[in-house]
Amino acid sequence: MTELWLVGIGTGNPDHLTLEGRAALRDAALVMVPRKGAEKSDLAELRHQILAACGSTAPVAEFDMPLRDDSLPYAERVARWHDEIAAIWAATMAAAQPRGPVALLVWGDPGLYDSTLRIADRLVPRPRLRVVPGITALQALTAAHAVPFNTVNGAVTVTTGRRLRDHGWPEGAETVAVMLDGDCSFQRLPPEGLHIWWGGFLGMPEQVLEAGPLAEAGPRIVATRAAARARHGWIMDTYLIRKGAG
Amino acid sequence: MTELWLVGIGTGNPDHLTLEGRAALRDAALVMVPRKGAEKSDLAELRHQILAACGSTAPVAEFDMPLRDDSLPYAERVARWHDEIAAIWAATMAAAQPRGPVALLVWGDPGLYDSTLRIADRLVPRPRLRVVPGITALQALTAAHAVPFNTVNGAVTVTTGRRLRDHGWPEGAETVAVMLDGDCSFQRLPPEGLHIWWGGFLGMPEQVLEAGPLAEAGPRIVATRAAARARHGWIMDTYLIRKGAG
Repeated sequence: MTELWLVGIGTGNPDHLTLEGRAALRDAALVMVPRKGAEKSDLAELRHQILAACGSTAPVAEFDMPLRDDSLPYAERVARWHDEIAAIWAATMAAAQPRGPVALLVWGDPGLYDSTLRIADRLVPRPRLRVVPGITALQALTAAHAVPFNTVNGAVTVTTGRRLRDHGWPEGAETVAVMLDGDCSFQRLPPEGLHIWWGGFLGMPEQVLEAGPLAEAGPRIVATRAAARARHGWIMDTYLIRKGAG
Repeated sequence: MTELWLVGIGTGNPDHLTLEGRAALRDAALVMVPRKGAEKSDLAELRHQILAACGSTAPVAEFDMPLRDDSLPYAERVARWHDEIAAIWAATMAAAQPRGPVALLVWGDPGLYDSTLRIADRLVPRPRLRVVPGITALQALTAAHAVPFNTVNGAVTVTTGRRLRDHGWPEGAETVAVMLDGDCSFQRLPPEGLHIWWGGFLGMPEQVLEAGPLAEAGPRIVATRAAARARHGWIMDTYLIRKGAG
């Protein structure tokens, strides 16, 4: 039975790697890496830099990521895409014939808004899974702003840009953390009494930060985000919004 | 102006330390550590082991944690306690006269259900703060169970045992992650349709895990937790509950 290690590597800062993650990348018998072009090119190259920096000498098997069929409805498109990736992983492993654990490098943490676990569950036979936690964009965000994720004994709703857009401020929430938002969905919220902490390229040399009352920081974030995206050709960002903070 | 580094060190597994955290502990001019007896003794000793293992040669200044005045109402008790800790930190730094940054080792991540940032904010003059993110118990939990934190495009409410006890299942939530629960507050929930993933001593050699439909796993968790607590004299645990999973 294959053993598959999903190794969280943080948000693009090679120093986010944990000692456990570094050891896993060194001890793996094979590392599978998506080929350049499959993702933002700075990130694709970064995986190889992380492998080199941590002294991994495991053979690297590159694979092509399939394209998503945007004509399908959301849920079906995602399910189909995951099926296809699982088939490609299986073929890549069959070709490489590793004599030990196979590692995948996962941005952030394999548990948080990442598909890797769901794709691995599609493999037949199901491999033995090991998950190595990694620093997430939310942690890089709160660290960069030196702001707590939660208030004392407070709750935090972690959600997506899509949900914030479709459903508005979550019922009863005090703090909301938003992932996967390509549309600055905070613009749909009535800004009164809300404070935002935003970050792009978190943990990377390109990191940009903005914070303040949503009414005034919101437009600044939209402009900063657009400028950073134009400069780099892509952007990853996340933010935290709190009621009555400041 | 003093520079204060809050270094997340994970949940008790020395390999949770990131390369950034290790470098910070090596580069600090002084490390402040609460004296043994101030916390669960296994954890107090573990801080020294982590410092030794990462090759830190910075002088270590130990300090006594004040006792909380349990006769005060919750908010006042916490505020008073944080004031006292800040005063002790200030005195410890004044006595040690560090010639560079001062580091504190923080369990988990300094942003997540931790007081260190709030205590640091009480220092006068306010030090320059650097926060180094660390692996949290929630990440150690989802990694140990190889379960995603969220469903596809789903939201997660991160809350406390006290809130779950006082307010029940958060309005509209699909997944709930519970921290700081000394009372197995999941017992107050109607268990139908809920699935739980629980862990104690996450990331440590003593790690215990349970999972399943809440109706059957709940009593098992209560028993496992009580046995583990009796065996070690203390326990730290956390859990994730999801509607309609399994």
